[in-house]
Amino acid sequence: MMAVPAFTLGQLAERLGATLHGAADKMITGLATLHEAGPDQLSFLANPQYRKYLAATRAGAVLLTPTDAQSYSGDALLIANPYLAYAQLSHLFDPKPQAIAGLVHPTAVIAADAVVDASASVGAYAVIESGAQIAAGVAIGAHCFVGARTVIGEGGWLAPRVTLYHDVRIGKRVVIQSGAVIGGEGFGFANEKGVWQKIAQIGGVSIGDDVEIGSNTTIDRGALADTLIGNGVKLDNQIMIAHNVQVGDHTAMAACVGISGSTKIGKHCMLAGGVGLVGHIEICDGVFITGMTMVTRSITEPGAYSSGTAMQPAAEWKKSVARIRQLDDMARRLQQLEKRLAAVTAAGDAASDA
Amino acid sequence: MMAVPAFTLGQLAERLGATLHGAADKMITGLATLHEAGPDQLSFLANPQYRKYLAATRAGAVLLTPTDAQSYSGDALLIANPYLAYAQLSHLFDPKPQAIAGLVHPTAVIAADAVVDASASVGAYAVIESGAQIAAGVAIGAHCFVGARTVIGEGGWLAPRVTLYHDVRIGKRVVIQSGAVIGGEGFGFANEKGVWQKIAQIGGVSIGDDVEIGSNTTIDRGALADTLIGNGVKLDNQIMIAHNVQVGDHTAMAACVGISGSTKIGKHCMLAGGVGLVGHIEICDGVFITGMTMVTRSITEPGAYSSGTAMQPAAEWKKSVARIRQLDDMARRLQQLEKRLAAVTAAGDAASDA
Amino acid sequence: MMAVPAFTLGQLAERLGATLHGAADKMITGLATLHEAGPDQLSFLANPQYRKYLAATRAGAVLLTPTDAQSYSGDALLIANPYLAYAQLSHLFDPKPQAIAGLVHPTAVIAADAVVDASASVGAYAVIESGAQIAAGVAIGAHCFVGARTVIGEGGWLAPRVTLYHDVRIGKRVVIQSGAVIGGEGFGFANEKGVWQKIAQIGGVSIGDDVEIGSNTTIDRGALADTLIGNGVKLDNQIMIAHNVQVGDHTAMAACVGISGSTKIGKHCMLAGGVGLVGHIEICDGVFITGMTMVTRSITEPGAYSSGTAMQPAAEWKKSVARIRQLDDMARRLQQLEKRLAAVTAAGDAASDA
Repeated sequence: MMAVPAFTLGQLAERLGATLHGAADKMITGLATLHEAGPDQLSFLANPQYRKYLAATRAGAVLLTPTDAQSYSGDALLIANPYLAYAQLSHLFDPKPQAIAGLVHPTAVIAADAVVDASASVGAYAVIESGAQIAAGVAIGAHCFVGARTVIGEGGWLAPRVTLYHDVRIGKRVVIQSGAVIGGEGFGFANEKGVWQKIAQIGGVSIGDDVEIGSNTTIDRGALADTLIGNGVKLDNQIMIAHNVQVGDHTAMAACVGISGSTKIGKHCMLAGGVGLVGHIEICDGVFITGMTMVTRSITEPGAYSSGTAMQPAAEWKKSVARIRQLDDMARRLQQLEKRLAAVTAAGDAASDA
Repeated sequence: MMAVPAFTLGQLAERLGATLHGAADKMITGLATLHEAGPDQLSFLANPQYRKYLAATRAGAVLLTPTDAQSYSGDALLIANPYLAYAQLSHLFDPKPQAIAGLVHPTAVIAADAVVDASASVGAYAVIESGAQIAAGVAIGAHCFVGARTVIGEGGWLAPRVTLYHDVRIGKRVVIQSGAVIGGEGFGFANEKGVWQKIAQIGGVSIGDDVEIGSNTTIDRGALADTLIGNGVKLDNQIMIAHNVQVGDHTAMAACVGISGSTKIGKHCMLAGGVGLVGHIEICDGVFITGMTMVTRSITEPGAYSSGTAMQPAAEWKKSVARIRQLDDMARRLQQLEKRLAAVTAAGDAASDA
Repeated sequence: MMAVPAFTLGQLAERLGATLHGAADKMITGLATLHEAGPDQLSFLANPQYRKYLAATRAGAVLLTPTDAQSYSGDALLIANPYLAYAQLSHLFDPKPQAIAGLVHPTAVIAADAVVDASASVGAYAVIESGAQIAAGVAIGAHCFVGARTVIGEGGWLAPRVTLYHDVRIGKRVVIQSGAVIGGEGFGFANEKGVWQKIAQIGGVSIGDDVEIGSNTTIDRGALADTLIGNGVKLDNQIMIAHNVQVGDHTAMAACVGISGSTKIGKHCMLAGGVGLVGHIEICDGVFITGMTMVTRSITEPGAYSSGTAMQPAAEWKKSVARIRQLDDMARRLQQLEKRLAAVTAAGDAASDA
C-alpha cells in the first residue's frame, strides 16, 4: 500500500500563489480531468474546448483563470496559467517510487575508480565502469549500465535499464527513461569496392541540463567530435539521433523522430511525431515541423513546415496516387491547352477584326 | 541438444478434429512451407497463390480444405480452415525453452512485500519491486524489471529484459517480448516562456487479457487516468503508444506504428506498419489503415484508409514532387481555361447565331 | 585516466602505405575534421565541398589524394582514397574500452552445457543459456542475454544489454549495439472470427559474417524457416526486420527502416532512413531507396527509387494537400477541356473552310 498524498486547498493555493475561491480546509488527494474528477480531486481548465465540461464537473476544485472563474460557482484556485499550475502541482501526486539518497544496492557492480557521490543511489544489478562520475543526488535505476569515464550531473534520474556507453557527458537534472541508449556507435562506414569498412566512432555525446530522454530513444556518439544536445531539450520515446547531430536549447521532439548525421537543429524548435531529417542540413531557431514530415533541405525561416498527403479512403487514395504519377503529363497538357486556346482566341479576334 | 517433437498424423488429426487421408502412424517432426517441407514435415495450403506448389510438395502431409484435397493424392489432414489449424499445431513444434513452474532463480531480487505465486517462475537477475503481484503460472524472464505495485495476471510471459514501471496492470496470458517498456513517463510538458516544465505522469497503464506486445515497443503511462489496451490486442515491434491512448479489443498493429496522446482506437482495427496517428482523435471500430499512412483526423466509418504517394524511380519522383508544388497554380489555370473556353464557345455560338 | 594513443606520421604512413609529405617524427594523438583539428591531430579531405577548409586548417597533417596535395603546403599523407584511409586509422584512436580476452565476470550466469571459448569474455550479469556456443575472441557485454542453443561466431562483440533469443546463429566478427533484440517472436496470428490466434514462431535467425546491428534494432525469428541476414550487412539503429525477411550481402540500411515479413532484399542495396517495405516483395541487387519511401511493390531494376512529397511551409502544404484530393477531378476536367477545345478548333476550321 502506498500512502495517498493529501493537501488542503489552502495549501495548494499558497504553493501556487493562487487566489482561493472556496473552503481552505477542503482535502485534495489527487488530480483529474474535468469530466473524470471526483469531489476530492483537483481539476483544471486550460484548453478552451473543454470549457463545456466546467458546468457539470464533480471536481472538488478547479484551477481557473480569473476570467473563466466568473462563470464557475464551485471551489476554485484562480491563476493566470492553469496548465502551468497543474504541471507544478502534478509532482505532489506522483506515485513514482523515490530513490533513497545514498542507497547503493549491494548487487551493483561499481568499478574501484568510479566516483559515486555519497548522496547518489544505485539500483540492483547496475554496472558502473571505470572512471565514471556520478554526482550528488543522482538516482541510477536497476540494470543500468554506465560506461567508462561517463559523467552524470547532479540530480539526474536514470530509470531502470538505461545504457550509457563510455565517454558520455550528462548535465544536471537529466531524466532518461528505460531502454534508452546513449553513446552507441554511429553508423559510419567507408565503401571499398562494394564492401563496407567500419569507421570507429571516437567522439562522445554531450547532453545539457534539464534534458528528458524517452523510452528506447537512441543517441549515437560522434564520429570525431561529440553529438550535442542542448539545455532543456525534451525527447519523447523511440527517437533516433545520429552521430554529430546538434540540438539547440529547449527544442522538443515527439516520438519516433529520426535525425540523420551531422544535422543541426536550432533552439525552441518543435518536431512532431515521426518527422525525419536528412543529414548535413540546418534548421534555424523557432521552427515547427508537423507530423511525419520528411525534411530534405535546410530551413532558414522560423515557421511551420509540412510534407505528405492527406489521408483518404483507400479507393480514392489509389486514384490520387495514379493521378500524381500523371502530374507531369497533366502539367504539359495544361500548358498546351493554354497555348492552343490563346491561338484560338487570337484567331477569333483576327476573324472579328477581319 | 533439444529433443525433437514427434507426433503421428493420427495424433494430429485427432487434436484438430481433422479428417485423415493417409497413414495414421506416419511420424511428423516439424512444420514447413509447401516448397520447403520434407517427408517428415507437415505443411498447409492457406493462400490460393501457393496452390501451384501443392503438386510438387515433398511434405509428409498437408493441411487442406476438403475442396483442395480433391486434387491432392498425398497424405493430408482435411479441415475447414488450414491456416488456423497450422496456427494451432505450431505450438507443438515450438523450440522455445519453457520456464519451469515455480522456479525462482536465486539471483532474482524480489521485494519482501511482493507477491509471487508459487507456480510462477522468475529468471536470473530479475528485479521485482515492492507490492508487485505475480499471478499463477507467470514466467518472468531474466533481467526483467517489475515496478512497485505492478500486477501481472495468470499465465503471462515476459521475455528477458522487459521493463514494467510501477502501477501497471497486465491481464491474463499476456506475452511481452524483449526490450518492451510499459509505463514509462508520458511526454507531458507545459511551456513557460519558452522553457518546458514537466508534468508528472500520475496515471498508470492497464492492459487486457491475451495481449501480445512486440520487442522494443513502448507504452507510456497516463498523465492523469490510465493508458488502456483492450483484450486480445496484438502489437508488433517498435510500436509507440503515448499517454492516455485507448486501444479497443482485438485490434492489431504492425511494427513501427506511432499513436499520439489521448487518441482512441476502436475494436477490430488493423494498422499496418509505420502508420502514425495524431493525438486526441477517434478511430471507430473496424478500420484498416494501410502502411505509413498519416492519420490527422478522426475516422467515423469502417473501411480502409491511406495516405502517401506511390514509389517511383527517383528521377520521375522529382518531377512529381515539383509538380505537386505547382498544383494550386495548375488548378487555378485549369479553372481559368474553362472560363475562357466557355467564353470562346459562347462567342462562337453567338457568331453562329448572328 | 585513459592513456592517449600516439603515433608518428611516419608510423601512420607506413601502416597505410601512404606517401609522406613532411616530418616523419611528428606525433599524432587524434583525428578531427579540417576545421576542428589542432596541430597534433590528423585530418582528411574526402568530400570536395570541404576543400575550402584545406587552406586554413590547423591540422598537424592531412590525408589527401595526390591531386589535392598539390595545392597544400602542410604535412600530408598522400593516398588514393583518403576517406578509406581515415576509416582504417580511426580504430587506432578509438577510446572504446577493450574487453580482456578470457575474462568472465564472476556474476555471469552460464549454463553448465553452454560452450564459451577460453578466449571469449563475458560481462557482469550476462546470462548464457543451455547449449549456447560462444566462439574464440567474442566479447559479450554486461546484461546480455544469449538464449538456448544460440551460436556466436569468432571475434564478435555484443555491447551491453543485447538480447539474443534461442536458436539464433550469428556469424564471425558481428557487432551488435545495446538494446538490439535478435530472434524475438515474429508477428504471426490467424484470425478466427475476429479473435487473433497466435502462430508459434518456430524458425530462427541466421546472421552472416561482418554484420553490424545498431542500437534497439529488432530482427524477428522466422515463422517456419529462418530470417536471413547476409554477410557484410550494416544495420543502423531502430531498424525493424520482420520474420522471414532475407537481406542480401553488403546491403546497408540507415536508421528506422521497417521491413515487413517475407520480403527479400538483394545485395549491395542502400535503404535510407525511415524507409518502409511491405511484405512478400522482392528488391533486386543494387537498389537505392531514398529516405522515408514507402515501397509497396517489387523492384526488378537497379537504381534509385522514392516516394513522398517535398516539404513546404505548412500553409502552402495545406493547399497542395487539398489539390491532391481534387486531382482526379482535375484530370477529368483537363481531358474534357481538350475535347471541347478540339471541337472548337474543328468548328473553327470548318468555319474557315466554309
